[in-house]
Amino acid sequence: MAEKTFKLEEIPHVSEFSNHGEFKATKTRNTATFQEKGQSKDKVVGSLEEAIRLSGLKDGMTISFHHHFRNGDHVINQVVAKLAEMGFKNLTLASSSLASVHAPLIEYIEQGVITHIETSGMRGELAERVSRGLMDFPVIFRSHGGRAEAVASGELHIDVAFLGAPSCDPFGNANGYSRDDDDSIMCGSMGYARPDARMADTTIIITNNLVKFPNTPCAIPESDVDYIVLVDDIGDPKGIMGGATRYTKNPKELIIAKTAAEAVKAAGYVYDGFSMQMGSGGASLATARYLRQMMIDEGIKCRFALGGITGQIAAMHEEGLIEKILDVQSFDLDAAMSLKKNHCHQQSDSPTYAAYRREAAVNQLDFVILSALEVDTDFNVNVLTGSDGVIRGAIGGHPDTAEGAALSVIVCPLTRGRIPCVVPKVNHVVTPGSVVDVVVTEQGVAVNPARPEVAEKLKAAGLPVATIESRADRAERSVGKPDPIKFKDKIVGVVMYRDNTVIDVVKQIDED
Amino acid sequence: MAEKTFKLEEIPHVSEFSNHGEFKATKTRNTATFQEKGQSKDKVVGSLEEAIRLSGLKDGMTISFHHHFRNGDHVINQVVAKLAEMGFKNLTLASSSLASVHAPLIEYIEQGVITHIETSGMRGELAERVSRGLMDFPVIFRSHGGRAEAVASGELHIDVAFLGAPSCDPFGNANGYSRDDDDSIMCGSMGYARPDARMADTTIIITNNLVKFPNTPCAIPESDVDYIVLVDDIGDPKGIMGGATRYTKNPKELIIAKTAAEAVKAAGYVYDGFSMQMGSGGASLATARYLRQMMIDEGIKCRFALGGITGQIAAMHEEGLIEKILDVQSFDLDAAMSLKKNHCHQQSDSPTYAAYRREAAVNQLDFVILSALEVDTDFNVNVLTGSDGVIRGAIGGHPDTAEGAALSVIVCPLTRGRIPCVVPKVNHVVTPGSVVDVVVTEQGVAVNPARPEVAEKLKAAGLPVATIESRADRAERSVGKPDPIKFKDKIVGVVMYRDNTVIDVVKQIDED
Repeated sequence: MAEKTFKLEEIPHVSEFSNHGEFKATKTRNTATFQEKGQSKDKVVGSLEEAIRLSGLKDGMTISFHHHFRNGDHVINQVVAKLAEMGFKNLTLASSSLASVHAPLIEYIEQGVITHIETSGMRGELAERVSRGLMDFPVIFRSHGGRAEAVASGELHIDVAFLGAPSCDPFGNANGYSRDDDDSIMCGSMGYARPDARMADTTIIITNNLVKFPNTPCAIPESDVDYIVLVDDIGDPKGIMGGATRYTKNPKELIIAKTAAEAVKAAGYVYDGFSMQMGSGGASLATARYLRQMMIDEGIKCRFALGGITGQIAAMHEEGLIEKILDVQSFDLDAAMSLKKNHCHQQSDSPTYAAYRREAAVNQLDFVILSALEVDTDFNVNVLTGSDGVIRGAIGGHPDTAEGAALSVIVCPLTRGRIPCVVPKVNHVVTPGSVVDVVVTEQGVAVNPARPEVAEKLKAAGLPVATIESRADRAERSVGKPDPIKFKDKIVGVVMYRDNTVIDVVKQIDED
Repeated sequence: MAEKTFKLEEIPHVSEFSNHGEFKATKTRNTATFQEKGQSKDKVVGSLEEAIRLSGLKDGMTISFHHHFRNGDHVINQVVAKLAEMGFKNLTLASSSLASVHAPLIEYIEQGVITHIETSGMRGELAERVSRGLMDFPVIFRSHGGRAEAVASGELHIDVAFLGAPSCDPFGNANGYSRDDDDSIMCGSMGYARPDARMADTTIIITNNLVKFPNTPCAIPESDVDYIVLVDDIGDPKGIMGGATRYTKNPKELIIAKTAAEAVKAAGYVYDGFSMQMGSGGASLATARYLRQMMIDEGIKCRFALGGITGQIAAMHEEGLIEKILDVQSFDLDAAMSLKKNHCHQQSDSPTYAAYRREAAVNQLDFVILSALEVDTDFNVNVLTGSDGVIRGAIGGHPDTAEGAALSVIVCPLTRGRIPCVVPKVNHVVTPGSVVDVVVTEQGVAVNPARPEVAEKLKAAGLPVATIESRADRAERSVGKPDPIKFKDKIVGVVMYRDNTVIDVVKQIDED
């Protein structure tokens, strides 16, 4: 190769050249000790109001929150009250979910501070009022996976994320627990907050517990955080997380749980190295109890448990029955403690958990056990509205896991009180029958005709297989046919499937 | 608020509407078991050649690699040989560093397959040839932090990253060790590979060990991975990582290490809750030994140790002397084992470690102990070229940690063999004297006049403080003044400071 004298200006992107050590230093060195620097709190601003001002929030923008504090959350109401006080209008509130504790939002909706809501679910007085036409624009309900996708694609663009965290260091490493203070509030995994922190234009951490750097391992890395606000109160520990999730003692639920465990086994999805997820209802949680005994008896292990995690799952991990946990949400304190302590109990974020793409962990599930408020003879499932048509639930990861898992099992009693739960037609479809395989009731198991091989296996194992129509008939014979709900024309909620196409709408209930 | 009937078309971004469960499913469900799905290997392609074709690589593009396999690396040579065979030309090779094992690149540079190189360092025959004018375009040398910044800003745009990994699951979760197979190759942290995986247009994992999903905790998440290639050989375990890093027995290095420990203590940077980093030379690694005893004697703990991590640091973590480890590179097998085992021994990526912004962990360092090939009377340090002007080193995190730490300490003997190491003027400046505070030799300690308070404290503690000029004089008296190196005009290397401005250039050596 011919020798050639190189010209410095040929180097791309080199803005200036200072030979032999004469560079233009752009920063002054800080020779304070690490301890002193920790006290300087670069990103920590004096008040919520200051953080809001610095964020550049404007009328009409979108603010986001997570729901890991559940019904103990004091962040959303606190932030929205401050935004109202500061005179903001026409905001979109996008929370990963909402609970009964968020009833004060009604006032701010009436004032026009909040004009749009995106959430996975809604309960209590706010949900009652929304169902009765509180808002001009319908609430957009998305699944956890759908929200992750919408945030990633920009369909749901977050201007400012306000994320409560039980611990945060002065540089923004935030966590759902604290390693430095065992008495602090815990929420465990912050899996639903992570995409917001990453994708928001501005991320504000709201914490009551400023800890020393480095707050690692952490849920949200400092690189995703712009400002930190230290407040006295982020939530009520009792509402955020009780003690251990108790086993249900409801005999109907125990029968259903036992049958569900036998069904997934009979269908061939319990083997050495299988994978599973349990939804959050009593019967679905109780299924783990029967699976545990099955695993011990047969000497088999679970490769990974996914999703919302309870202390039961954590205990099975600790006794070596479950190799890995991917935890997007810790359902109880024991699960949160395990996340803090156990190296292979890992925090997972919502895109990794459930986004609509091939690598999502839901697609690696052998089975998922899910609850339902209603299931119909087309196997459609409603987990969002009650039998009176009023919103009182959440989509959660229901459609994500049902579609992703090789076998989706709905556990649902035939009736609750005087209300039939297996019905000819659900009021609102959240998870379509095309991704629901098995419905387990306390009186028989129905298998989707699309899965004849599963029906055969269940029958061969001696399980009480019956048609879904016969179960709906039995429910109706038992409690009678409820009066049809009357709805007005106004749409109060839009239900998105996990691919963010509309799968159903919720209309205003007609009480006239 | 006036009631208003909502029109569905007012919902932004909703492309279609199918009422009551009739949604347009875009995917067919896969009802295979998790075990069967694991064997389908979605992203795993049949050969390196196929992965390269699928990546869309074109002549003139930039390919990237990591250096966690050190001198045992078989990935770079393997990939470049394949690219040569496929006829690629004019590629930029951007590796986080290069070692002696990469001498075969000379042939591909001569053939025009590789025309540009970016790296932290270079050694052996390749470095010798580059110093003698092998390439038309100079090699761009960046620090680890500078590279992280350049990758993040797009100044260094990576078209295709080829990242060797000791384990990877079929969905792309890749690790520097394996939890499923204790006999596999280990490299520990893959901190320098993570920004490449995230920022590259296409990321290809090259592994000899395909493990079950989920390969968690992991270094590189599946969401950053496009293709996986299973090959027989990714490297030589002996070259990748020896056993434990041995304590130096060199008496000169031991004196220097002991003095360095005493100096950081005297300067006030060893206290309960301090932070530290040790560079990779014998004396700097040995400093940990003296610090450990100091900590035990005084009953104090280190909050975190940063950077390249050795088994000594891991052992101090395990005995409770170091609370947290942020590990961007595991220097030995014991460190890698600790990363695999210990929950608070965390993998850190290069932007978090050293990028040029306020949150980088280097800015939280109380002190760093760093080696030098040469240091001059302006406190400038050279870690890149030998006394003959030939490239035989690496910038690494030297300038990043020196500038970031509250106290930067250079450990350097006055002479090595017949060569003076404290000199009037270094051949090439990698770390400018403005960010170097203390130079510890076996014969006295020099303090930068910019830090008079440090000089006072060291004197008060009885340490042998002397001027840097007097140390250079003594070195010269001891071994004589070396003949000046002759250089040609051609620039063969450009040395970037951590803010990616040029701090020096390396010219072709003149042997005529």
